[in-house]
Amino acid sequence: MSSRKEAAARALWSPAVRGLHAYVPGEQPQGAGWIKLNTNECPYPPSPRVLDAVRDAADERLRLYPDPTALSLRQTIAKRFGLTPEQVFVGNGSDEVLAHAFCALLRHGRPVLFPDVSYSFYPVYCALYGIEPQPIPLDDAFRVRVADYRRGNGGIVLPNPNAPTGIALSLSELTQLLESNPGSVVVIDEAYVDFGAESAVALINRFPQLLVVRTLSKSAALAGLRVGFAMGHTSLIEALHVVKDSFNSYPLDRLALAGAQAAIEDDGHLQALSARITASRQWLEQQLDGLGFDCLPSSANFLFVRHTSARAADLFSALRERRILVRHFKQPRIDNHLRITIGTQVECEALVDALRHILSTSSSAGAPISAPIGTP
Amino acid sequence: MSSRKEAAARALWSPAVRGLHAYVPGEQPQGAGWIKLNTNECPYPPSPRVLDAVRDAADERLRLYPDPTALSLRQTIAKRFGLTPEQVFVGNGSDEVLAHAFCALLRHGRPVLFPDVSYSFYPVYCALYGIEPQPIPLDDAFRVRVADYRRGNGGIVLPNPNAPTGIALSLSELTQLLESNPGSVVVIDEAYVDFGAESAVALINRFPQLLVVRTLSKSAALAGLRVGFAMGHTSLIEALHVVKDSFNSYPLDRLALAGAQAAIEDDGHLQALSARITASRQWLEQQLDGLGFDCLPSSANFLFVRHTSARAADLFSALRERRILVRHFKQPRIDNHLRITIGTQVECEALVDALRHILSTSSSAGAPISAPIGTP
Repeated sequence: MSSRKEAAARALWSPAVRGLHAYVPGEQPQGAGWIKLNTNECPYPPSPRVLDAVRDAADERLRLYPDPTALSLRQTIAKRFGLTPEQVFVGNGSDEVLAHAFCALLRHGRPVLFPDVSYSFYPVYCALYGIEPQPIPLDDAFRVRVADYRRGNGGIVLPNPNAPTGIALSLSELTQLLESNPGSVVVIDEAYVDFGAESAVALINRFPQLLVVRTLSKSAALAGLRVGFAMGHTSLIEALHVVKDSFNSYPLDRLALAGAQAAIEDDGHLQALSARITASRQWLEQQLDGLGFDCLPSSANFLFVRHTSARAADLFSALRERRILVRHFKQPRIDNHLRITIGTQVECEALVDALRHILSTSSSAGAPISAPIGTP
Repeated sequence: MSSRKEAAARALWSPAVRGLHAYVPGEQPQGAGWIKLNTNECPYPPSPRVLDAVRDAADERLRLYPDPTALSLRQTIAKRFGLTPEQVFVGNGSDEVLAHAFCALLRHGRPVLFPDVSYSFYPVYCALYGIEPQPIPLDDAFRVRVADYRRGNGGIVLPNPNAPTGIALSLSELTQLLESNPGSVVVIDEAYVDFGAESAVALINRFPQLLVVRTLSKSAALAGLRVGFAMGHTSLIEALHVVKDSFNSYPLDRLALAGAQAAIEDDGHLQALSARITASRQWLEQQLDGLGFDCLPSSANFLFVRHTSARAADLFSALRERRILVRHFKQPRIDNHLRITIGTQVECEALVDALRHILSTSSSAGAPISAPIGTP
């Protein structure tokens, strides 16, 4: 009876949904006592002004719908970046903004290009919207070569800096990319730009095909508020609004709107957090280097590293046993790397101590962790 | 130069997006002094426990992502409705939940049925996902006849009570509908159910094709929090999760999760609000009847009315001049009706006074408002 109902319900899935392989976000342990270096959250609190703004908004006005156009927030973002509100789109995290961009601007019956090692949500969006994904291999140093993106396409999506590598492209490389792709939308995903890369916002008024996507989840320390935005030519932004208003009129609640506005206005807090994190990144990179790790040159709030002898999967497990979470991607080319979010200085030191202990124990005991490994 | 860029950017829209006609939500005036009876918000504040929960959640934990599975909220909803958490899906307002349902469960290459006079977002979802919409006419009394839904379809969507009519179907009518449609998903949109209709949740364990959708925007007085949910067979819920996790892993921020949980737990507050609103509805219906209005029998937090002589468009404008907003739909069959949200008792009295004044002035002066009108 129950299995007959199960079969009946399962038969009702839209056929296109059967083939989807959803994105798997990093682990969010619910208990306390973890050092979380696995989802690139900020280890420091958001601006106190954000918390005040949210608490002020938590009153009986919650009975009313939010402004569906989010005009006030869009005005604040526009002012911060020297644009007009018509050049700004806001959404429920940059993931929702990216989803709408794939739907509104990248469905042209031609493949969409992105790096083979990159944010693993891009191929998921392609599958959701029936777009052919065309991963473009990074070079042997895990760098994006913009010359590789001169081929027929229905759009290009590039994180800058790239994730999980952390490596940034220069503004002149992005300019080359845009000049060689006048006829398709180029999405630059700047989730991590505040930690050391050059922003493509400066190119928006020159290239009408450029869409720059941002999030408050990383440098503004607001992963829990779910706010992202896109900036670009008014006509690109208009397409995003058509799709958004065909999906959900009010993706940002009153609390998120209030908090996001306060966050954008307190740019000093963001700059201070970014400075602390880049300082810790520099320190951690030196320490890991001393422990036998190769670190890619990072412009982000994480390091992408590979040990010269110990296996990434073993290190991941050994750290997890010590309640330290890092990210290990079981996918080609990078399955022997770890992505390590920059935590507080204290957390970084705890990580280094743990790794030193793990590596010394395993190498002296001849445990599996020190077993020789092949090249990736 | 600027218009060349405009043309270049516009050429980059995905072709499928050019044909979309987005949903237009009701007006949200930003100034004060309005009596807002146009978007079916609750005129009374949400539970104080919700505001406390939101303020408690507004701390440095906002730097961390929310639980992508929203397990705690889903457990609370499941407990409230006598279901398991695996039978519950949550989203950013019932609009997002409905969008995912259209994508995950209603795309079968066959038309999706819904009433011709109903929530005007349904045909928009159809357009977004390439589904053929098949509106089924209400009868002359604006009632849904479930016998009309015995025809080949890729799914059925019915609000109960229907909007903007306010008329409810009985549980036995819904049972007939489900019995005659074993092979397609039947979505019952219960946005307004708490104001006097019977819930189909009681039928979930009997019919694996039933999906019941709810929102906290109306009876829980939380339109500004953006929380909706769906309940149904675990396999239907699983399909919704696949689509959600292919679109945006974390649609509910930490504040909305905390507030929603407190709202579900304070069912007494919801019941008290609903009782006040249904009492005001009864009073308002009597008053409008005395002013020459025909009111459809409402089980919702609004009345759908038509004056025996004055034109709806004129009444809408005359009320708007007095800063009273009601909803007027410029669409076939109902363009001479008004949908009036039940406000506080004071707001209802202000509306009645204004209408009395408008109708007496116009009928004595022979102004356009009293001009004879044809049947709709």
